[in-house]
Amino acid sequence: MKLTQRYRPSLALLTDMYQLTMAQGYWKQQRAEQEAVFHLYFRKNPFKGGYTIAAGLEDAIDLLQNFRFTEEDTAFLAQVKGSTQEPMFEKAFLDYLRQLKFTCTVDAIPEGTAVFPNEPLLRVQGPILQCQLLETPLLTILNFQTLIATKAARMVDAAKGDAIIEFGMRRAQGPDGALSGTRAAFVGGVGATSNVLAGQLYNIPLKGTHAHSWVMSFDDEEESFATYASVFPDDSVFLVDTYNTLEGVKKAIAVGQKMRGNGHELKGIRLDSGDLAYLSIEARKLLDDAGFEKVSIVASNDLDEYLIESLKLQGARIDTWGIGTKLITAYDQPALGGVYKLAALKNEEGHWDYKVKLSEQLIKVSTPGILQVRRFYDNGVLVGDMLYSEDQGISRPSTMVHPNDPTQHKSFKESCTHEDLLVPIFKDGQLAYTSPSLKDIQTRTKQQVESLHETYRRLLNPHIYKVGLEQQLHQKKMDVIVELRNRAD
Amino acid sequence: MKLTQRYRPSLALLTDMYQLTMAQGYWKQQRAEQEAVFHLYFRKNPFKGGYTIAAGLEDAIDLLQNFRFTEEDTAFLAQVKGSTQEPMFEKAFLDYLRQLKFTCTVDAIPEGTAVFPNEPLLRVQGPILQCQLLETPLLTILNFQTLIATKAARMVDAAKGDAIIEFGMRRAQGPDGALSGTRAAFVGGVGATSNVLAGQLYNIPLKGTHAHSWVMSFDDEEESFATYASVFPDDSVFLVDTYNTLEGVKKAIAVGQKMRGNGHELKGIRLDSGDLAYLSIEARKLLDDAGFEKVSIVASNDLDEYLIESLKLQGARIDTWGIGTKLITAYDQPALGGVYKLAALKNEEGHWDYKVKLSEQLIKVSTPGILQVRRFYDNGVLVGDMLYSEDQGISRPSTMVHPNDPTQHKSFKESCTHEDLLVPIFKDGQLAYTSPSLKDIQTRTKQQVESLHETYRRLLNPHIYKVGLEQQLHQKKMDVIVELRNRAD
Repeated sequence: MKLTQRYRPSLALLTDMYQLTMAQGYWKQQRAEQEAVFHLYFRKNPFKGGYTIAAGLEDAIDLLQNFRFTEEDTAFLAQVKGSTQEPMFEKAFLDYLRQLKFTCTVDAIPEGTAVFPNEPLLRVQGPILQCQLLETPLLTILNFQTLIATKAARMVDAAKGDAIIEFGMRRAQGPDGALSGTRAAFVGGVGATSNVLAGQLYNIPLKGTHAHSWVMSFDDEEESFATYASVFPDDSVFLVDTYNTLEGVKKAIAVGQKMRGNGHELKGIRLDSGDLAYLSIEARKLLDDAGFEKVSIVASNDLDEYLIESLKLQGARIDTWGIGTKLITAYDQPALGGVYKLAALKNEEGHWDYKVKLSEQLIKVSTPGILQVRRFYDNGVLVGDMLYSEDQGISRPSTMVHPNDPTQHKSFKESCTHEDLLVPIFKDGQLAYTSPSLKDIQTRTKQQVESLHETYRRLLNPHIYKVGLEQQLHQKKMDVIVELRNRAD
Repeated sequence: MKLTQRYRPSLALLTDMYQLTMAQGYWKQQRAEQEAVFHLYFRKNPFKGGYTIAAGLEDAIDLLQNFRFTEEDTAFLAQVKGSTQEPMFEKAFLDYLRQLKFTCTVDAIPEGTAVFPNEPLLRVQGPILQCQLLETPLLTILNFQTLIATKAARMVDAAKGDAIIEFGMRRAQGPDGALSGTRAAFVGGVGATSNVLAGQLYNIPLKGTHAHSWVMSFDDEEESFATYASVFPDDSVFLVDTYNTLEGVKKAIAVGQKMRGNGHELKGIRLDSGDLAYLSIEARKLLDDAGFEKVSIVASNDLDEYLIESLKLQGARIDTWGIGTKLITAYDQPALGGVYKLAALKNEEGHWDYKVKLSEQLIKVSTPGILQVRRFYDNGVLVGDMLYSEDQGISRPSTMVHPNDPTQHKSFKESCTHEDLLVPIFKDGQLAYTSPSLKDIQTRTKQQVESLHETYRRLLNPHIYKVGLEQQLHQKKMDVIVELRNRAD
């Protein structure tokens, strides 16, 4: 189910106030329809990682398709007052908003693609007033889902083929933090969720058995397992740490033996506290010695990709990883920090003026143009991405310039193949894209991560993937910066 | 506007899968209606702080009031399959859910109250099946809003009376992260938001002027300011750092002088990058020297309570603090970690059996009973909170036991007054509470923080507020623990 169906039909007010004041400014100036290009991108991979997984596009498309100001929306804006208690917004401007139709052209990188700093995940071209209003919600949707998909992909990579279950809803940042987050976690490769509503909305497999409270509600732990098994004889995973973990395992085995007598098999046990390395090894021994080699061990308790890696190195015998808080909130970096910058504006002669946001640091200066990302492959392996501007084209296809150090160039072999990552999503406001199924997006993520050299995938100090500028674009960017610096001083 | 109105009418599926499997287990056992008591509480103040501000109750009430399984909900559950491809849920159980009505008794601490570790923010008493299903959404709502309200209150306290504007929507964890988060930030004391939809839904004052893109869309920075002033002559705050901050201030002053010529006053300037201490002091000089003593300086750029405190110590001349990412995501601790534990279960004789979740660490062992929080005041100042069980009452009103060190007692003076914090919210499923206005909740937060001794309010190593157990409750808890440990070994 789509964002607007589960939320509200129009989300036009889900934006920052300054987008609306600027919109009235452009409109007053008769510049509302002036054509602009904005890029949405981030400056650093999250989690000090080597790559990022794009996510959220399907929700962003839904937002754009349903973009309109309802009568309720403009009625609310009509009564917003300024410091003199006069209305902030003119009636004629609100009438303009009321009849506004989304007419932008949007290109974006499909969900599940590995992306890197400074690459536009999304490019909006159209009337500056519309581009501006859309900044905030597009960032909200893409920043968060991209963040969580990336976190999930890192955990999946660390788990090396083990199953991961997402069950962070209780710690999520609000109901939509749980829903959008679970969707993004699935994009990143998580196999199942505890979130029933996400299961319904996104067709994600559901998992869940029982909590400590189930055990505590019985006088006897073994009785609680036996009762659970009587209700779900083929789907029993017993939580064994309510009182004493290894004693709990023994009781699970006792119940497992009775289940077997009745023609059923215990599916698993879950460890939720204590030393997971030690306990999983001891639990495995107990299970194996009792003939329960196929009973899987599920572990949980504030896990993340670092703990998964560490537990595997310690020889922990964990088959399934249950992950909550650290995934659903991206705990160690809970925001991506994506930005949305004006990059070009069509002047009265119909030509593009390139636009740059200056900064003291070259790394924070935006790149102007109508950007596309060309990705180069050497035998299917990613070797570098070149940003170029579609109105300039490419002069020397095989060479690009380091974005922050013009003395460094990178050349690609003649035998490299390439692909342009941004694909058409909307053409003049008309949808030109069909979102793949969430399962297909998940498959794309897996393929993308696997096509990255392992040096980009390691958790600690990963290799920096090369993203450069096409030569004419680089030159033009330098020219604009120098001109602006001269003018500012 | 309420959660269910902005989201979907029933949120019964917004729960963990294991709540539903346990529910079927209780139902199969004819124990669905067995009366239970659960407490929702957290174990540590967030941000290594000295206090926490309760928030989110109004949304939780809305969730409970609208709690029901729709036909769509049970139709979805009917097709959830187990490992043998048989349905997980029996038709008769789903029929039971379909006719289920919320009949619990709920008590809670009002929003805007200063609360402390191990105090129940909310107590649910009722049929165990219902209590269990409600665990996850209650945690989602109260964990997040309490977290953000606390973060906001810390920032407001650090700002010592300066205005704070929340504008983190673009970095929020999904649309509801932005909306619930903005609501909670207002509870914590933030004065305004950039989030237009939150303004509409919650009647929170809106603020916003223009972005860098506005300036960049003009050939000349001064022209961009003058144009903005022509549209909003009485509400102009110019963002001065697009090219060079102090040059930008001079241009703002030049436009301010022209505005004054037309009978209007420049309201402010905004600094969004660079050294905010240095730049604000220099900007203040420029403004004052030009006769603009009343023009306020707004600052933003990854601010939080620590930076506010530091900038104030450095003598920064900042009047209004614009706060984004660090507030809306509670960046340095993006989850509260609240839990929801079974504390008592009515046995067949109609008596309460006390329930405890054991743990290796005493600090993580839950407290049983039907808990109430009695707060003691000495001349209006908070001096300690005593947990007691309503079925036991209080034996010696003036003495409580340290929860993790039984050798420590705390006594209150005879002259102390007291109040019980949990108030009735629902009685047998019927609403018994009217939520105060959001503005009144904000006022309560302010009064609560001010009634805390400053040693609890400092950011670094705050004093630990005393929360103890009533003596009979303490004794009973110890008895239950010893009994459980004996049985487990």
